[in-house]
Amino acid sequence: MPRPSRWNDIVEAAAKIFQEKGFAAASLEDIASEVGMWKGSLYHYIDSKEELLLAVVQEPAEHLLSELRIVASLDLPATEKLRMVAQAHGHVLETTFVYASVYLQEVAGRKRSTEWAASDREYVRLITAIIEEGIARGDLSSQLDARTATFALVGALNWVTRWYRPDGPLSAGKIAEQICTTFLNGLITRMPDRAPAPLADIDPSAL
Amino acid sequence: MPRPSRWNDIVEAAAKIFQEKGFAAASLEDIASEVGMWKGSLYHYIDSKEELLLAVVQEPAEHLLSELRIVASLDLPATEKLRMVAQAHGHVLETTFVYASVYLQEVAGRKRSTEWAASDREYVRLITAIIEEGIARGDLSSQLDARTATFALVGALNWVTRWYRPDGPLSAGKIAEQICTTFLNGLITRMPDRAPAPLADIDPSAL
Repeated sequence: MPRPSRWNDIVEAAAKIFQEKGFAAASLEDIASEVGMWKGSLYHYIDSKEELLLAVVQEPAEHLLSELRIVASLDLPATEKLRMVAQAHGHVLETTFVYASVYLQEVAGRKRSTEWAASDREYVRLITAIIEEGIARGDLSSQLDARTATFALVGALNWVTRWYRPDGPLSAGKIAEQICTTFLNGLITRMPDRAPAPLADIDPSAL
Repeated sequence: MPRPSRWNDIVEAAAKIFQEKGFAAASLEDIASEVGMWKGSLYHYIDSKEELLLAVVQEPAEHLLSELRIVASLDLPATEKLRMVAQAHGHVLETTFVYASVYLQEVAGRKRSTEWAASDREYVRLITAIIEEGIARGDLSSQLDARTATFALVGALNWVTRWYRPDGPLSAGKIAEQICTTFLNGLITRMPDRAPAPLADIDPSAL
């Protein structure tokens, strides 16, 4: 379907309404009203609320996955790659918080389409491969179960959508960075020679 | 409203349908059919789908919170308390996986009622206090931001509902334990003298 000129406004309004009301409670009337058109006019642009939801989340989700593909292909220690993954996550959250929340709440894990499920799987596979590589190279602990560690990291990062507030004291980027550092160093006090850099302002050369 | 004898069957059927279809798509007809009664008869038990959802998740959520209150009050190192928190989480997941998934997907974070939001906040506050205590006692790294670390751990544990399969190779209890160990020790290889206890059966030559 061709997308006329108000398409971007509609997608943005949909994201806002989905975020405020949840997907189930949001109505096309709400979205039409938010963007200042009649519900009938909205049907020139979309066929259903589901179609609008996918439009809302597709671009940032694809962007994050393509960034992750690049990071995975770099010749860097796993610790650095994981920092870059967290950074990309934080950036998506910061710039498209509303969209990301809707995606994680309403699309991810629900297996609404095989295409989306395939993207989710590739995302997890790429991070698992980074951790496995880190274990093989000795950067990461050989005691790790790479798959569980991946889901733990992804879960911690995704869960940020549940508690992050754009007007809070920490930016999403800073939170994602702290989560990654927590994961890399662990909660237990480390010997100074193993964790020389402070959490907030880590020096990559120290790793 | 008094709950006649088929109440437990209805709550169980509701949990199953919510889990399979998502809360939005599930209908009272589906639930009535699952339990083998007419939709009209269901109204003798409940007034709305929302009421049924809360009934589904209330008991395990309250149980987990009361366990956490006990753990928080114990005189033990933070590392041990966090292991117990993860264990309780894993146990809830294992015994009430379907209910827990529905709760996390549909109730938590949506702030559907002030009562539920207060429970969520108390849960987070208790874990944050355990981590703060661990930092004060020197068990946990002084570089941690206790609140971010709490949400990272809670997020990783909650995210298990998105990928755990009851017929998979690892039990939910085992997964929760692994996540906690990963959090305590971190992904980066540790010096043997700083992490002797948590990683069970550690091979020092591998570090």
